[in-house]
Amino acid sequence: MSLSLNRPDRRDGLRRLFRHPAEMLSSRAIRTQAPPISWLMQQAVEVEGLISLAAGLVDRASLPCARVQALVNEILADPEAGRDALQYGTTPGHHALRDLVRARYCAGTAYDDADQVVVCTGSQQGLELLGEAIYDPGDIVIVEDPTYFVYTGVLESFGCDIRGVASDADGMQVDQLALLLDQLRASGELARLKAIYVVSYHQNPGGWTLSLERRQALMALVHGLPEQVLLIEDAAYYELAFEPDQRPPLMATMDASGDRVASFLTASKPFAPGLKTGFMVVPPRLVAAVVHLKGNHDFGSNNFAHHILARALATGVFDEQVADLRAVYQRKAQILSEALHRELPAGSAQWAESSGGLYLWLQVPGVDTGPDGALFKACLEQRVLYVPGCYAFAPEPGRSKPSDRLRLTYGVASDEELVEGARRFAAALLSLGV
Amino acid sequence: MSLSLNRPDRRDGLRRLFRHPAEMLSSRAIRTQAPPISWLMQQAVEVEGLISLAAGLVDRASLPCARVQALVNEILADPEAGRDALQYGTTPGHHALRDLVRARYCAGTAYDDADQVVVCTGSQQGLELLGEAIYDPGDIVIVEDPTYFVYTGVLESFGCDIRGVASDADGMQVDQLALLLDQLRASGELARLKAIYVVSYHQNPGGWTLSLERRQALMALVHGLPEQVLLIEDAAYYELAFEPDQRPPLMATMDASGDRVASFLTASKPFAPGLKTGFMVVPPRLVAAVVHLKGNHDFGSNNFAHHILARALATGVFDEQVADLRAVYQRKAQILSEALHRELPAGSAQWAESSGGLYLWLQVPGVDTGPDGALFKACLEQRVLYVPGCYAFAPEPGRSKPSDRLRLTYGVASDEELVEGARRFAAALLSLGV
Repeated sequence: MSLSLNRPDRRDGLRRLFRHPAEMLSSRAIRTQAPPISWLMQQAVEVEGLISLAAGLVDRASLPCARVQALVNEILADPEAGRDALQYGTTPGHHALRDLVRARYCAGTAYDDADQVVVCTGSQQGLELLGEAIYDPGDIVIVEDPTYFVYTGVLESFGCDIRGVASDADGMQVDQLALLLDQLRASGELARLKAIYVVSYHQNPGGWTLSLERRQALMALVHGLPEQVLLIEDAAYYELAFEPDQRPPLMATMDASGDRVASFLTASKPFAPGLKTGFMVVPPRLVAAVVHLKGNHDFGSNNFAHHILARALATGVFDEQVADLRAVYQRKAQILSEALHRELPAGSAQWAESSGGLYLWLQVPGVDTGPDGALFKACLEQRVLYVPGCYAFAPEPGRSKPSDRLRLTYGVASDEELVEGARRFAAALLSLGV
Repeated sequence: MSLSLNRPDRRDGLRRLFRHPAEMLSSRAIRTQAPPISWLMQQAVEVEGLISLAAGLVDRASLPCARVQALVNEILADPEAGRDALQYGTTPGHHALRDLVRARYCAGTAYDDADQVVVCTGSQQGLELLGEAIYDPGDIVIVEDPTYFVYTGVLESFGCDIRGVASDADGMQVDQLALLLDQLRASGELARLKAIYVVSYHQNPGGWTLSLERRQALMALVHGLPEQVLLIEDAAYYELAFEPDQRPPLMATMDASGDRVASFLTASKPFAPGLKTGFMVVPPRLVAAVVHLKGNHDFGSNNFAHHILARALATGVFDEQVADLRAVYQRKAQILSEALHRELPAGSAQWAESSGGLYLWLQVPGVDTGPDGALFKACLEQRVLYVPGCYAFAPEPGRSKPSDRLRLTYGVASDEELVEGARRFAAALLSLGV
């Protein structure tokens, strides 16, 4: 979003924008900042010929135009189905879709109830709604360090007190979490703890998946916590596992109590982001609160998209697309990683090979990867963009943030752009004398 | 939304739901109630063969299946356009759509800037986002009495202090508003006033349109208020004027300051609710706050729907649909009104003929129209549903609510159902000895 700075008649508007915010704006609006990614996106637009290895968009060539066209034609050529899809839906979403989501992700578990599935405008809306349902300013939320930086922005917007727990190749270090919980218990802060948030598959930005052992240990820890503490599982990349058979189970399906986990899934990454449809699976005690808040927000997301996706899931078209995308991203992850290995001086950077999702998480020892550092500047000169790692570390005062990490994505760039992007990135790094 | 009460394994879930809300839920969630309309909708589902003259859905037969199918085929058959539509969009919405909205509603006014248009998940999301941007608990918001009851629910959810101003066939009585403002000034409460909310065309539930004279007087009053006070114009029924040439201008277009009005429009009523797309036009000083909050909510509504609607607006298909719908609703309004005149005893009820929108607002002198009253019960026995007027009056302590009003809609019922619904309504009224 940019105001047209070059138009004189809008300068008054800009003055107004900054003149008296405190009088007009709510306390939440004052706490809500533009996400750092906005600035990155702006760079991507302004630098001509730039290759973005930063933007979290999906692969363009594999977007399912023909599949969606066929589904829409099936729906709209049938007057009854067409009218159902173009009429208002209901607040929690199209029931057939909720039931297909239940069957796909929760069958046979303590969450096996379509009434606990709420369809949202992307999983992001689910995260926001759940936050509205449970957070008051001052509530403590524990996140992985690093974590999904859009969610820390949401937490700051709610006035939450964010605490980070170190993560490694197996995800959140649950023994470190246990230590933090002991500290909160000792300091009397445990009553303020509301949630533990994990991105549990092919994490953004780290790329790792929370291992089965860690999942079991995490679940046990959560069951020992006061009842108000919820485990929030952001499973946005669940479907994009290159080897789905080796994928550990969703946290919700491991919670025999049926009461402690909210899992978030999406059709954006594994099908089509333009349909902007995600799913939340919540414990019974939160259904009413979330649905009432959603009633205020929109009394139901885009019903047409719900009908398209229900048909995609019911007919197997969704699975076909997912299978195609797994192959696409596995190929693209390999292209980017191989190009980096080829172009970068040995030892100048480390990263783990991707097992799914959209990201590589690089450490570049001794190099400041921040937005004001030399590497970021050199990359802009070379016309390649990455996400500085500093954005992803928990904004917890006193907690140190490594300055030598960065996120690359193989999602949106073409095969050729990935190779050229890696070449430019290496040229930028070399220009620093690394 | 209903939990499956008949399944024993879910009863535990329900117990949990009600056991410890205060521990788990945020203060906003605790303030947020199920809208009364949910209960009405539940009746509609449970009473077999019921004719709903209550639900605010749109006419089913006229939903634009063929038009949307043609638009989607044009978009998805073109790989570039198709991929643009199925990729992620941007937080404020598809730029071409924002510019078409600007051109349609704001050209030549102080709001003539696509950057001030934000595309939302229905206009309802816009109302919610604006509320988040400006309301803190205790803020005063003035509404028409009666007003759109979903919005008073939103205001209660934000903890706002709601004040009503009497309305008549020309809309909000602006002289009464002036008196209320004087009272707020005298009591020192004016600093807490944040907004004045009007449904400005074919009001829900009253059916009236705010007259040009009242608009001018209202605009003048707003310009005399402290800068933090915003005029919120809900123009959901703007396009559904039966005589659009006689429609007064949007409030935003009358605000030469460019700084005091937020107008809300929608494609749901005049095109297709299933696409769930609405528009807000806001002053420059609120753009950043609204867009940053929307970044937390969903970082952009359904992009596919934006592309469909942009093409509908650009090609004239939107106008074709609007023209068809005006004729449909004018016919249906007349069918319902004539059937009521025919079936009801003379003098038993009064209403104004509709000039647009979806509603008739009836006064039934001497009859309690409330959900616990005899008429509502008699109507359920006759299998016809209306919206009790009491839901629509301002929830302001000490303010009297007329008990003899009700809302009927000719939106969703077929021509035959309208006639039969009127017959059943009359039978219910006659059964009370009226």
